[in-house]
Amino acid sequence: MGYDFNMPMREEAEAYFRSLQDRITDSLSALEGQPFREDVWDREGGGGGRTRVIENGSVLEKGGVNFSRVFGKLPEEFADQIPMGSGSEFFATGISLVIHPRNPMVPIVHANFRYLEKGDAQWFGGGTDLTPCYPYPEDGTHFHKTLKAACDKHDESYYPRFKKWCDEYFTIRHRGEMRGIGGIFFDYLKDDPDGTFAFLRSAGDAFLPAYLPLIEKRRSEVYGAREREFQMLRRGRYAEFNLVYDRGTVFGLKTNGRVESILMSLPPIASWVYDYTPEPASAEEKAAAYFQPRDWA
Amino acid sequence: MGYDFNMPMREEAEAYFRSLQDRITDSLSALEGQPFREDVWDREGGGGGRTRVIENGSVLEKGGVNFSRVFGKLPEEFADQIPMGSGSEFFATGISLVIHPRNPMVPIVHANFRYLEKGDAQWFGGGTDLTPCYPYPEDGTHFHKTLKAACDKHDESYYPRFKKWCDEYFTIRHRGEMRGIGGIFFDYLKDDPDGTFAFLRSAGDAFLPAYLPLIEKRRSEVYGAREREFQMLRRGRYAEFNLVYDRGTVFGLKTNGRVESILMSLPPIASWVYDYTPEPASAEEKAAAYFQPRDWA
Repeated sequence: MGYDFNMPMREEAEAYFRSLQDRITDSLSALEGQPFREDVWDREGGGGGRTRVIENGSVLEKGGVNFSRVFGKLPEEFADQIPMGSGSEFFATGISLVIHPRNPMVPIVHANFRYLEKGDAQWFGGGTDLTPCYPYPEDGTHFHKTLKAACDKHDESYYPRFKKWCDEYFTIRHRGEMRGIGGIFFDYLKDDPDGTFAFLRSAGDAFLPAYLPLIEKRRSEVYGAREREFQMLRRGRYAEFNLVYDRGTVFGLKTNGRVESILMSLPPIASWVYDYTPEPASAEEKAAAYFQPRDWA
Repeated sequence: MGYDFNMPMREEAEAYFRSLQDRITDSLSALEGQPFREDVWDREGGGGGRTRVIENGSVLEKGGVNFSRVFGKLPEEFADQIPMGSGSEFFATGISLVIHPRNPMVPIVHANFRYLEKGDAQWFGGGTDLTPCYPYPEDGTHFHKTLKAACDKHDESYYPRFKKWCDEYFTIRHRGEMRGIGGIFFDYLKDDPDGTFAFLRSAGDAFLPAYLPLIEKRRSEVYGAREREFQMLRRGRYAEFNLVYDRGTVFGLKTNGRVESILMSLPPIASWVYDYTPEPASAEEKAAAYFQPRDWA
């Protein structure tokens, strides 16, 4: 990929994340026929970011693709929660994205890839996961197989391990269900930084081939008020997960992060109905069966 | 009020909360012209509750008024977080309600009154607070004055103290704003149980006179898409507070509470817009000024 391995890892990682953000927003923008709005911001305490958002598109109802590079000192209570490195000095760069498509047949997607340093420790983390409202088995298989291929190029133990980690992480514990159908998730990968970084690039590069075909395939599916209502309920649960369990969201909100960049992950519109129960044998009831760990690849 | 003070406090409290739930749902049901749905449930581990919900009313878009009486053992990590009593044996009874009116000019309201025992400690807690989307100063004043009068009958230090406590508790810290315009909030009131219970009854009895006139007054206000959109944004922030900061919600979700009763507080429909900024000098911009502590009574 032409990376200059004489550059320090921070700069390598930053350059990769910036270019990945560009590639993703270029592709999505072309598909939507609408540019992303860009906000470049500075962080009090060190660093800043480049937030790109699209809203009210005909395909993408709301989407954010954020790059950031931040550093400084972590509040002590949070520094202690990170099981890597000593002290509270940190450096973090990465990309974080969430897409909420308008059509309920196009799945929501989330991805986050990051490089971190704390004290003298350095590691990579991230992943990508899919949240369909109406899961099509072949779409889930395409998404997972694309990620598995990217993993297998580096280590055949990666996909099974990171797929399981994702299933566990993206679980709405109080609902006893996953947020969606998973993907891969990994954290604290510290051994062999060059090899790990190469894997992370493969995973990052796999995002567009894993997701874009699903937009193309489903963007013109017919739907009505019923499907839209179910989409809003599923988005409500998406918001529950992000606000109650997602470490990045909670950490960002409680450490004075840039609120608008953190909460761009929340759905454009969501709903909550008391004791929602789908009709027996309906598509909505069948959907629920997919929000449990299953073999997709 | 005819309470039999030879009954143990638990039974006294339970009887009061049940009758308060009845009075509140009777009044709201009469106003809506629609009955509440009632779900009576048992809690694994001890006790249960009586959840009453109304949805899709012409006045009340969604509302829940819950009674519960639960007991047993707290998970150790949560038992340690409660600064009262020793051990993990607990008993709790109370009422908890949230009303999301349809008309954006009618404020959202929340109330919770409870009696707790843990080990050999016993105490009362709760309060009620108002969340208008478009604050009318005279409505806020009516709400606060009604609560102040209920407090003043018992102790003139109560209202200033509990009003401040409410301002602090119902703050969306990452937004630097209150959820609404406050009311009263108190917890761990343990001295003079009979006197404290008498105060709690005054506060509980003040709920309907504090809130019902605001529904009556604003339910026919004219509004359009713009006001509805602003209402959905404010409801999004309501959901943020409840899912990120509200102790009862987070505690309930993480201790295997009845999810549907806990999350009936979430709005029927809510929205999130990236970097929402109201037009200068608009009603929406003026509203923001009210979501900071101010002297209402």
